[in-house]
Amino acid sequence: MRATLMYAAGDVRVEDVPDPSIVEPTDAIIRVTSACVCGSDLWPYADLEPTETGRPMGHEAIGLVEDVGAEVRTVKPGDLVVMPFAFSDGTCAFCHEGLHTACVHGGFFDGLATGAAQAEAVRVPLADGTLYALPVGEDDALMPSLLTLSDVLGTGHHAAVVAGVKAGDSVAVVGDGAVGLCGVIAAKRLGAEQIIIMGRHPDRIALAQEFGATDVVGERGDEGIARVRELTGGYGVQSVLECVGTERAMDTSMGIVRAGGAVGRVGVPHYEAIKGAQQMFYDNVTVAGGPAPTRAYIGELLPDVLEGRIDPGRVFDRTVDLDGVSEGYRAMNDREALKVLIRP
Amino acid sequence: MRATLMYAAGDVRVEDVPDPSIVEPTDAIIRVTSACVCGSDLWPYADLEPTETGRPMGHEAIGLVEDVGAEVRTVKPGDLVVMPFAFSDGTCAFCHEGLHTACVHGGFFDGLATGAAQAEAVRVPLADGTLYALPVGEDDALMPSLLTLSDVLGTGHHAAVVAGVKAGDSVAVVGDGAVGLCGVIAAKRLGAEQIIIMGRHPDRIALAQEFGATDVVGERGDEGIARVRELTGGYGVQSVLECVGTERAMDTSMGIVRAGGAVGRVGVPHYEAIKGAQQMFYDNVTVAGGPAPTRAYIGELLPDVLEGRIDPGRVFDRTVDLDGVSEGYRAMNDREALKVLIRP
Repeated sequence: MRATLMYAAGDVRVEDVPDPSIVEPTDAIIRVTSACVCGSDLWPYADLEPTETGRPMGHEAIGLVEDVGAEVRTVKPGDLVVMPFAFSDGTCAFCHEGLHTACVHGGFFDGLATGAAQAEAVRVPLADGTLYALPVGEDDALMPSLLTLSDVLGTGHHAAVVAGVKAGDSVAVVGDGAVGLCGVIAAKRLGAEQIIIMGRHPDRIALAQEFGATDVVGERGDEGIARVRELTGGYGVQSVLECVGTERAMDTSMGIVRAGGAVGRVGVPHYEAIKGAQQMFYDNVTVAGGPAPTRAYIGELLPDVLEGRIDPGRVFDRTVDLDGVSEGYRAMNDREALKVLIRP
Repeated sequence: MRATLMYAAGDVRVEDVPDPSIVEPTDAIIRVTSACVCGSDLWPYADLEPTETGRPMGHEAIGLVEDVGAEVRTVKPGDLVVMPFAFSDGTCAFCHEGLHTACVHGGFFDGLATGAAQAEAVRVPLADGTLYALPVGEDDALMPSLLTLSDVLGTGHHAAVVAGVKAGDSVAVVGDGAVGLCGVIAAKRLGAEQIIIMGRHPDRIALAQEFGATDVVGERGDEGIARVRELTGGYGVQSVLECVGTERAMDTSMGIVRAGGAVGRVGVPHYEAIKGAQQMFYDNVTVAGGPAPTRAYIGELLPDVLEGRIDPGRVFDRTVDLDGVSEGYRAMNDREALKVLIRP
């Protein structure tokens, strides 16, 4: 089959690799019908050390189950399924608490062992705990929105949940990438009254406003902080959704959160420490978040997608086949594309 | 009247100062019947730069209302009241959310303007929002326990609340000072099943066990972390109550919290940054906490004190009058006394 491998920063290739096959009796093989490039894929695209074997890429997918191991019970060949970006057994203490990304037997689709999703097919470990069967056909018009259940919608939702967003709140979303935009959807869905999007790409900002953002702050750093405070009576927002992961984004987040508020981090952090530990203390600020247990959220978010109340699939503004994946990375990296959908 | 002033590290004096009087119509003057020395008072006792005016000390008190300003409605002369360590108007957005320590008109009893509680009397700003009238007389045997509502019991409770302690949880309490011991009480009260006290003072550990601690870890640093992990199936605890405030205590806290867990900080932080921001992220760990809104918690905790279900007053192991305050500081600083009660 054909699969996407990254060999170094900026070097993405689609190559023939062996077809995946059942290794464990709990595995499933899915034929990928939709995958995509993630903002987090742009980190190695910027700095991956050259590797001779190549790194299999892609952790978001919808696909058709092709084969299952002997112990798989909940999905069967022919099912159309969402594959969350992490696999999980669904039975351990952490899965029972809804933190599937800490599953004691789980892991991430980011290595040679598991394969990855920007490919014609992928092996899914712990299929019963991981995959979620969809009640629609593979050509359904909602496919882009359903694909966001794999990562970006659930991740934006996680940011909102851990930041404690509730009805009537003021919320700021730091970052206008696909996760940030899904954070806007999530904040609105949870009843936030004021939703401030921090970003400066006109098309993304326009989409954020369609998703429910009430205010836009294009300024960065201290100016951005001052502007958010201005918009919130001087106090800052109750919840910050930190959807970038840079130190600057985190500094901004800590600068705009009000006393008693929370910062929900879902941007993969590229910093070592959270600064301002004393101000954070005196203000009773909470910092939470991490890899979103998107598997846990599908049941809650799916009805809103199916019934058209939210339309997160609009974050995809370009579609490619496998031949176009390398160009898709480039376009996302150059901020020409917001998020690239792949139809292998 | 006589009041306690700190002039430099280790230099605590009781001196004659002007009697406090009503300044604002929302003030009350209380005659202090019980006050105490706080663990946080030991920070300036260790490092206060010499000051010519002296710093008024003490922020925990029970007292009799002696005089009230023209606008005070909820307390009257003769009432016995608890004075939380922060004053608050009780009406702003933050007070309504239960975060009285972020009151927009509030503040702390730590300055020349407000006076302080290790004295014969103290001026209490915003008396209606701040003071809580007690349904007992000033000689009630429960007075030591009632006094803890001013700070240490509410602070231990806050640590447990922001760390998300719930029935059946595993909890670790870092620090065996008065706040840590009240954290044990709070964790047990909220239904924690396993309560690990980290400390090494035999008498305090014994009291922690009487309060409900199920396990004791005397080791520190990496050894202490390993021991807590051993006691929790390798995962760490769901909630950590960080009741010290040193960088080492925070490092320990981050080392023993399990994925999806939370660290509730109530020790005044003497560090600038929270390290391990990446591990914290990958484990979806929450860090929360700050100055406890003890005023918000009195209503919930008072019945348990009055009906004898909890006995936090046992943290006081020495009682002095104003002449004994300096010696009380010394004894607490040298860890001879756990917490010193002052009867002015």
